Amino acid sequence: MSLTVVGSVAFDALETPFGKRDKLLGGAGTHFALSSSFFTDVRVIGVVGSDFTDEEWAVFKRHKINTDDVEVVKDGKTFFWRGRYDYDLNTAHTLETQLNVFETFQPKLSDESKSARLLFLANILPMLQKEVREQCADTEFVAMDTMNFWIDSMKDAVIETIKVVDCVIINDAEARQLADEPNIHKAATKIMEIGDLRALVIKRGEYGAALFTKENYFAIPAFPLESVFDPTGAGDTFAGGFMGYLASQVEITEDTLRRAMVYGTVMASFNVEEFGTERVDRLTHEEINERFRQFKRLTHFEEIPFERATSA
Amino acid sequence: MSLTVVGSVAFDALETPFGKRDKLLGGAGTHFALSSSFFTDVRVIGVVGSDFTDEEWAVFKRHKINTDDVEVVKDGKTFFWRGRYDYDLNTAHTLETQLNVFETFQPKLSDESKSARLLFLANILPMLQKEVREQCADTEFVAMDTMNFWIDSMKDAVIETIKVVDCVIINDAEARQLADEPNIHKAATKIMEIGDLRALVIKRGEYGAALFTKENYFAIPAFPLESVFDPTGAGDTFAGGFMGYLASQVEITEDTLRRAMVYGTVMASFNVEEFGTERVDRLTHEEINERFRQFKRLTHFEEIPFERATSA
Repeated sequence: MSLTVVGSVAFDALETPFGKRDKLLGGAGTHFALSSSFFTDVRVIGVVGSDFTDEEWAVFKRHKINTDDVEVVKDGKTFFWRGRYDYDLNTAHTLETQLNVFETFQPKLSDESKSARLLFLANILPMLQKEVREQCADTEFVAMDTMNFWIDSMKDAVIETIKVVDCVIINDAEARQLADEPNIHKAATKIMEIGDLRALVIKRGEYGAALFTKENYFAIPAFPLESVFDPTGAGDTFAGGFMGYLASQVEITEDTLRRAMVYGTVMASFNVEEFGTERVDRLTHEEINERFRQFKRLTHFEEIPFERATSA
Repeated sequence: MSLTVVGSVAFDALETPFGKRDKLLGGAGTHFALSSSFFTDVRVIGVVGSDFTDEEWAVFKRHKINTDDVEVVKDGKTFFWRGRYDYDLNTAHTLETQLNVFETFQPKLSDESKSARLLFLANILPMLQKEVREQCADTEFVAMDTMNFWIDSMKDAVIETIKVVDCVIINDAEARQLADEPNIHKAATKIMEIGDLRALVIKRGEYGAALFTKENYFAIPAFPLESVFDPTGAGDTFAGGFMGYLASQVEITEDTLRRAMVYGTVMASFNVEEFGTERVDRLTHEEINERFRQFKRLTHFEEIPFERATSA
């Protein structure tokens, strides 16, 4: 059981209705790795600057995340994003983006990273995703994320990358945009047919998530939360729970994919409870399993066929 | 087992990307009664004009819906609504509304209607809903719908009506608007506390539905549909399946409420497949139970606690 993720490792600055932080550990690669580390051995491939301190490295160490393939650019600065959320917390308003060392990021994979059983291509330039995927010839299951920016500006490249992966994990609006189709089920069919996907996961934020496979459809609501504190990284935390759980299982089947969806939902629900990585950093397996149980209870119903009684 | 519904009986004219119809049987009372008639004995209270023909009455007769309390206004015209849906089918654009006989509608309940075990107050003037509710002193379970128009123009009256019912069935946007709160779980808590509600059902269209009770939360996705043909009446058809199923059960419990949510979802999924009442009109119990089984399959997952294997 092993899992490699390629993605951003970053600093975030945030303004939300609940407070302000100037420097949080962030990035898709970080959120994914942290989340999946509860289920499996993870290696993260990324790049940081020399401003990355022992405090940040400690988060990775604490969760036994292998960072041998995280390049440190001397005198470089780490990718920095500043954003704001308003009360509805649905939309991130970007106030500032400094790509810094991430601008010229060239993922360098060690043999250990290449030989992972599962690979996740977090949201980076689609051509880079494809290059990484092609270096991992023996990987059993490769999943990718992408974003509206790439679908807008280089849809063909996104499609070429989809053709070489097993699973796409994207959000609702991205799926509709990618397929140019408002009905999500039709959009899913179109995306499944781009490549030879085994699975398509569509994340719907507060409305839950849906899993499309060749033969089946599975859908779950979100975990109910009265207070979403910071939604940054929720999607990557979901993907981390999903891929991490799959990596921990002997086989990827309809059943394990469905439970992976629930673990993704559970992990994302913790992530949004506090700023940045703070909540997931001190999570326990007991808390994860307890929330899984709660989720089972809140979605469960008995199947009893209806029979109309004859009127008296 | 018996159920009374008070609501509009109407003619609809529709334009959708899939076609056009000039005269369809419609109205909240109609859609609700038709849907619930698959589960229980239903009485509908409403008003129509003399333009209501044998063809329309036949739909009610076919499903043994009691229309003794539907007033026929001689020389009056039936409530008429003309609307348009665009490709996304999410928003109904009203092109024309003729209230006609509905403008001065005064529900007149026979003793049989008053003594029903369950009562549904479809979307009419909140003061009228309250009057009807007060005439049904012995009713075991009363549910109501409402709409953005009443919440905007007479929120106090809506709140007074909520105080005298057991259950509110509304959509997502209405719940947020009513509670003046963007987080749906906080909004639900506020609405539950307005009165002494046993249940609050929030309908979320293509995203499913959620049930809030004093002790529990339950959420389900929508039934997946590649072709939504005509969404008119989906909410009332949901409510009809929900209340009809409850009326068929000896007791209203957490378990029966949950299954009622699924029957509501199933009935609504049929309703949108064709224009107006056409699909539900020729539905069978076998089709309903088969879709319930499908729904169970597409939401089911096994609960298996995760245990992290020790790394080799």
